[in-house]
Amino acid sequence: MIGIFDSGVGGLTVVKEIFKYLPEYQIIYFGDTARLPYGTKGADFVKKYSEKITNWLLHKNVKIIVIACNTASAQAGEYIKNKHKEVPIFDMINFAAEEIVSKTKNKKIGIIGTPGTIKSNTWGKKLEKLDPSLKIYLKACPLFVPMVEMGFTKGKITEEIANEYLKKIKEKNIDVLVLACTHYPLLKKVIQEVMGNKVEIINPAESVAKHLKKYINNNPNLSKKIKKGTAHKFFFSDQPYDLKNISRLCFKKKIIPIINDPFI
Amino acid sequence: MIGIFDSGVGGLTVVKEIFKYLPEYQIIYFGDTARLPYGTKGADFVKKYSEKITNWLLHKNVKIIVIACNTASAQAGEYIKNKHKEVPIFDMINFAAEEIVSKTKNKKIGIIGTPGTIKSNTWGKKLEKLDPSLKIYLKACPLFVPMVEMGFTKGKITEEIANEYLKKIKEKNIDVLVLACTHYPLLKKVIQEVMGNKVEIINPAESVAKHLKKYINNNPNLSKKIKKGTAHKFFFSDQPYDLKNISRLCFKKKIIPIINDPFI
Repeated sequence: MIGIFDSGVGGLTVVKEIFKYLPEYQIIYFGDTARLPYGTKGADFVKKYSEKITNWLLHKNVKIIVIACNTASAQAGEYIKNKHKEVPIFDMINFAAEEIVSKTKNKKIGIIGTPGTIKSNTWGKKLEKLDPSLKIYLKACPLFVPMVEMGFTKGKITEEIANEYLKKIKEKNIDVLVLACTHYPLLKKVIQEVMGNKVEIINPAESVAKHLKKYINNNPNLSKKIKKGTAHKFFFSDQPYDLKNISRLCFKKKIIPIINDPFI
Repeated sequence: MIGIFDSGVGGLTVVKEIFKYLPEYQIIYFGDTARLPYGTKGADFVKKYSEKITNWLLHKNVKIIVIACNTASAQAGEYIKNKHKEVPIFDMINFAAEEIVSKTKNKKIGIIGTPGTIKSNTWGKKLEKLDPSLKIYLKACPLFVPMVEMGFTKGKITEEIANEYLKKIKEKNIDVLVLACTHYPLLKKVIQEVMGNKVEIINPAESVAKHLKKYINNNPNLSKKIKKGTAHKFFFSDQPYDLKNISRLCFKKKIIPIINDPFI
C-alpha cells in the first residue's frame, strides 16, 4: 500500500493526483482531523504528530509514504526522512521544486501557503539552492483553508479575499505561482483570475504524483511489494467537518471515512 | 484561583469580562491551542479534552471553573458538571440563558455560534425549557473564528461575510442576538451594523461574569479559598497563532503565554 498523510481532508487533492498517475495501487490515507489545522501550529507539534503518523502507517505495512500536507512537508519533511530511511518518503516540496524551476522564464516565483509553511521558508531555501538567481516571493494566506472547508470556493467574497492576499505578490510580476497548500487547488480558478493568464499556477501534487510513478516503475522490487487494488482506506482521527463536499470536489463521489484516533 | 478554559485564545474575551467584575481574584487560563478549533470537531473529542483540561485545572488547585469555550459548554458542559460535583463549574449557557429570556420583547431570539455549538442545540433546548413560547433561530457561522484569528475584524470583506451569514436570521425579525462563541464579541460592531440598532447583541460572557461575582460573594467560604492577586497565568498547549492581536483587543496589552501541552 501507499501511505498518504495530511492534517485533514486537504490531502485528498493529492490523492486525486496519485489516482490519476498510479490507479493500480492501493492507498491508505490518514487525515489528522482531530488536531487540524497544522498550518497555524508550532513546528514542534507538527514534527511530533508527523512522526506518530509515520509510525502508524508503517505498522499498517505501507511500502512508501507521501507527506501530502504541505505544512508537514515544510516543517517535518527532512526530520521524518532522516528518521525513517527504511522506507521511501515523498514530500510536497523536493521533486516539485525541480519542476517549478524549469518552468519559470523570468525567474520570479510566487509561493503561497499556510503561515507554518511560509514561516519555515523551506520552499525558498530549496528553490534558491537549485537556482540562486531566482527571486522568490512568499505569502501566507491563512484564511484560504477555512474558506475552502466552509464552502467558499467561488463567488464575490472568495474573489475579494483572494485579491486581498494576492495583490502584493501580483505586483512582483511573477510568472509562476505555487499552490503550496493542499486546499489551494480547490481555489485555482479564482486564483488564476486574480493573477491573470500569464501566470502559470502550479499544484505541486501533480509533480509529486508523476515522480512517484517514475520512482515505483524504476524499482520493480518495490513495485511488487506494494499491494494493488481499489480497496483504499481513508482514516481520520476525528469526524471530518465537510468530507462530502471535498470528496465530491476531488473524486466526484463520496468516500467512506474510518474514524479512529490512535494518539488519544 | 479561578480556572478558565477554552479551545484557544477566544476565551480571553471571557477573561476580559471576569476581570471587569472580579478584578481581585487570580485566574489560571488554559487554551487548547494544540487541538483548536473545537467548533468543527466531534462531540466525543470535545468531551474527552474538556474532561482532561478540567482534571488538569483541579490539579492546579482551582476552586471554581469557567468553561469559556461555547462549543465545550454546549457539547460537554453537563457532562463535566455531572462528573465533577466537587467544584462549582460555570458554562457559557445556563446563567446567560436566563438573562437573555428576560431581554426579548417579541420572543424571537437568534443564536449564532460554531457548527458544534449550533448542531448540539443546547442553547435552543435551554431557552425553550425556560420559555416554550420563544422562537429560536440558530445559525452556524464557521468562518467567523478564523476571520477574527487572521485579523479580519472590520472592513469590507468582514462586512460581506457577516452579511452572508446573517441575512436569513435578520429576516426573522429577532430582537435579541446571542454571540454564542468567544470570538464573536470581537466582531460585535460589524454584526450590530448588519443587524441594525433594534436588535440587542448579547455577549453571554458578561452575564456569566456577573453571576460568577454574585455566586462568589454569596459563598464567603469559597471566596476565602480562592487565591487573590494579579499573578494570572495563561497556559496554552501550543504557541498561539496570533495572541498579540487578540490580547491587545481584549486587554490593550500583551500577555505572557506559558506553552505546555499536558496531554501529548
